Amino acid sequence: MNVTPLSRRGFLKTAGAGGITMWIPTNARGYTSAEMRVKDAEASLVGVSKWELDTPVLCVDLDKLEQNLATMRKKLAETRVASRPHAKTHKCPAIAKLQLASGSIGVCTAKVSEAEALFAGGIEKILMTTSNVTPNKIRRAMAISKANGSFIQAVDHPRNAQDLSDAAKHAGIVANVVVDVAIGTRSGVPADDRALAIAQLVDKLPNLKLRGLISYDGGAQHIKGFTKRNEETLKRFEPSLGTFEAMKRSGLNTEIFSGGGTGTYNIMPKVPGVTDVQVGSYIFMDAQYLEIGGEGNEELYTDFAPSLTVITTVLNTYFPNRLTTDAGAKALTLNKPDAIVIGEKGFRYNAGSDEFGAIQYETSSKQYDVGDKLELIVPHCDPAVNEYDQMYGTRKDRVEVVWPISARGHSQ
Amino acid sequence: MNVTPLSRRGFLKTAGAGGITMWIPTNARGYTSAEMRVKDAEASLVGVSKWELDTPVLCVDLDKLEQNLATMRKKLAETRVASRPHAKTHKCPAIAKLQLASGSIGVCTAKVSEAEALFAGGIEKILMTTSNVTPNKIRRAMAISKANGSFIQAVDHPRNAQDLSDAAKHAGIVANVVVDVAIGTRSGVPADDRALAIAQLVDKLPNLKLRGLISYDGGAQHIKGFTKRNEETLKRFEPSLGTFEAMKRSGLNTEIFSGGGTGTYNIMPKVPGVTDVQVGSYIFMDAQYLEIGGEGNEELYTDFAPSLTVITTVLNTYFPNRLTTDAGAKALTLNKPDAIVIGEKGFRYNAGSDEFGAIQYETSSKQYDVGDKLELIVPHCDPAVNEYDQMYGTRKDRVEVVWPISARGHSQ
Repeated sequence: MNVTPLSRRGFLKTAGAGGITMWIPTNARGYTSAEMRVKDAEASLVGVSKWELDTPVLCVDLDKLEQNLATMRKKLAETRVASRPHAKTHKCPAIAKLQLASGSIGVCTAKVSEAEALFAGGIEKILMTTSNVTPNKIRRAMAISKANGSFIQAVDHPRNAQDLSDAAKHAGIVANVVVDVAIGTRSGVPADDRALAIAQLVDKLPNLKLRGLISYDGGAQHIKGFTKRNEETLKRFEPSLGTFEAMKRSGLNTEIFSGGGTGTYNIMPKVPGVTDVQVGSYIFMDAQYLEIGGEGNEELYTDFAPSLTVITTVLNTYFPNRLTTDAGAKALTLNKPDAIVIGEKGFRYNAGSDEFGAIQYETSSKQYDVGDKLELIVPHCDPAVNEYDQMYGTRKDRVEVVWPISARGHSQ
Repeated sequence: MNVTPLSRRGFLKTAGAGGITMWIPTNARGYTSAEMRVKDAEASLVGVSKWELDTPVLCVDLDKLEQNLATMRKKLAETRVASRPHAKTHKCPAIAKLQLASGSIGVCTAKVSEAEALFAGGIEKILMTTSNVTPNKIRRAMAISKANGSFIQAVDHPRNAQDLSDAAKHAGIVANVVVDVAIGTRSGVPADDRALAIAQLVDKLPNLKLRGLISYDGGAQHIKGFTKRNEETLKRFEPSLGTFEAMKRSGLNTEIFSGGGTGTYNIMPKVPGVTDVQVGSYIFMDAQYLEIGGEGNEELYTDFAPSLTVITTVLNTYFPNRLTTDAGAKALTLNKPDAIVIGEKGFRYNAGSDEFGAIQYETSSKQYDVGDKLELIVPHCDPAVNEYDQMYGTRKDRVEVVWPISARGHSQ
C-alpha cells in the first residue's frame, strides 16, 4: 500500500469537498451553533478560539485526527489488510471523505438511514453491516443500490436473502451482498453450515451478487490487556475463518472478508484471508478505549490520540470539593468509565444527571470560578457524537471547520 | 382552579396551533421519518398504523397523554398549587401548548437554547431554571427577555446577578429573575443567608425584577415508596422554606415559589407558600418512575399512564432464549431500569450495545420471527426523547400527529 502523508492543504481540500466545510470568521466571539452556521457566507480562514464557543460543545482536534488517520494508514500498510472505517462512529460525510483520502477502501454503516445520509453527502463506497429485514428498509436499501452500484449490504437469513433478491429484481438491479457471520449472540448467522448455505443461496439468487463475508466481534474490542485481547480475538474468530475457508472451497466469492475494530486492528491481519478492518473509534478515541491497553503498553492504549472532546462550563462552586458543570448525560451519555477532565488528576466526573455534570475532587490545579471552562475526553465516542448536530474541528485551539453530523439520530 | 376536560377536538386544535401539527395521509405504508415530513402537504385525518413505521421509532399514545394532563389538572385543582411543567422532558412546543391549555401556568426549561426553541415555537411563559453564567448565554437570555416580557431566569450568585442587571440595562429592559435555592449539591445557592442576600441584591438592582424563588430537589423524585419519599421530601425542603419565609419577612416579592417534580407533585402542596410544581415526566412516564411507587401503591407508581414508547424490530432469532432488536443505546439510552417489553413478562432488555437491543428470556407469549415488532416503555423519558427528531402521536395505534422535537440536542 502506498503511504503518502496527508498534508494540511490536502486535508482541508478533502474535508471541503461537497460543500461540507464551513469557515469561521476572524471576529467571531461567543457564537451559538445556529450563528456559526449562518456565518458560512463570511468565509475567512482564521477562526475563533474553541474556548469562546457556547457549551456544551463537541470539538475535534484536527492535528490529532490527522495523526490518527496517518497512524492507521501506516500500520496497515505494513500488512495486506485495508481499513473500511465504520461511519457509525462519526456520522459525518466530511470525515468519511478524509478516511477515503487517507487510503480506506470504503466505509461501513450500521443503519440504512446512515447509508442514505452518507450517500447524500457524496460517499459511494458503503458497506452496511446490519441486515435490512423489513419491507421498508429493504426498499430503502435497494433505492441506494440503484443509485449507487458500489453499495453493499449484509444478509444473515435465507428468507431475507430471498426478499433482497426479489426487491432487487423489482428495482431492476443486481444488489451486492455479504454474509454476516456471527461472533457471539448479537447479529449474523452462526458460523456453521447455515452460514455456508446462505452464501450458496445468495450466489444462486439471480438479483444478488455475493461479495464475501463480514464477521465483527463487538465483544473483543474492549478486552483489557493486549495479550489477552490478542489471544481471545483469534480464538473467537476461528469459526468465522472456518466459514471463510468453506466458502472458498465451495468456489464462492470471498473478495471481502471484513472484521475487527479499533481494539483489534493489529490482530486481525494475523488471520489469513482477512481483507479489511471495520475500525471506528481510532479517529477520536475515548475513555473506554484508553483503558484497554495496547501492544506496547498493557495499561493505556496509546496507538491513537484522543482527538474528540466536549468543553463544558462550571456553573456552581458553592459546595466544598465539588463543581457543577453544564454537561450531563444529554451531552456525554451514561457510558463508563467517566469522562476524563483534561489537566486535572483525580477529578471524578459524574454525568448521571441529564443536564448537569457533577465533579468531585480532593485537590485541583487551580481555584475554579463560575464560568470557567473544562475540557473532557468523552466516555464513549459513538453515542456521544450522536448527541450533537455538529462538531467543531480545531487546530491549536482555533476553530478551522464546522462539520454537520449528518447522520445524527439516524438509528433506523 | 376551574377544571374543564380537554376534548379531543380541543386537544387537536391546541396541538395544531402554530403549524406544528402534521396530518398523515390514509394510504401511507411504511413511511420513513423524512417521508412523513414531506407528506405534510397531503392533509388527511386518518393515519397509518404505528406498526408500519420504520424502527426504532418514538411514539406517544395520545389517549394516555391526555389522561395524564387531565389527572395532573384534576389532582392539583384540589390544592392551591399550579403546574409549571418542565419542557426539558418533551422539548416540543406542541406539547407545551397542550400543557398550557390544560391549566399549566407556564413551562420551565433547563437550557437557554431550549427556551429559544420554545419561544420560536410560540411559547411565551417560560421560566429557565438554570443560571446563565457566560456572557454569551446572558446575551441570549436577554434577547429572549427583550422579545418576550414574560421570560424568567434563575440566578444563584451575586456576581451573576450584577452581570444580569448590566446585560439587561445594555438591552434596555428589566429582566425577570428568580433565586435558585439549592437542595443537595447540584445547582443553586445554599439555603442560608447567602440566598437571602442574593434576593435582596436582585431586588435592589435597577434592571432586574425579583419574582420569587425556585428550589428543585432532583434527588427526591425517585425515592422508592411514597411514605419515605413524602417524609424525606418535606424534610429536605425545610431550608428552602426557611429562605422563602425570610424573603417574605424582608418584604421581598415571593409571588413564585416553585419546586417539586413528578415524584413529589402531591407532596409539595403540603408546603405553605409553594405556588407551583415543575413536573416533567408525568406526561410520558417511564420505567424509572413506574418503580418508585405511589400514594396508594408502594410498589408501582400508577398515578400516570406510560404513554411514551419505542417500537423496535426483531433482527435475529438464531440464539436460544435470545432476540436481537434494532433499538440499542442510541435509541433508548443506558438508563436503568431496563426498557420494559409490553406484553411479555420476564423479557430482560439490554440496550448496552449502541445499535442493538439484546433480549434474554425463558418463556415468551409467542414464537418470534425476524421482522416482528416489539413495543417498549423507555427506561428514562427525558434523555430518550432527546435521541429523536420527532415523535409520532398515535390514537388506537394509528398515527394522528407528528411532533418535531424542536429542542432536541439543545444542551447549551
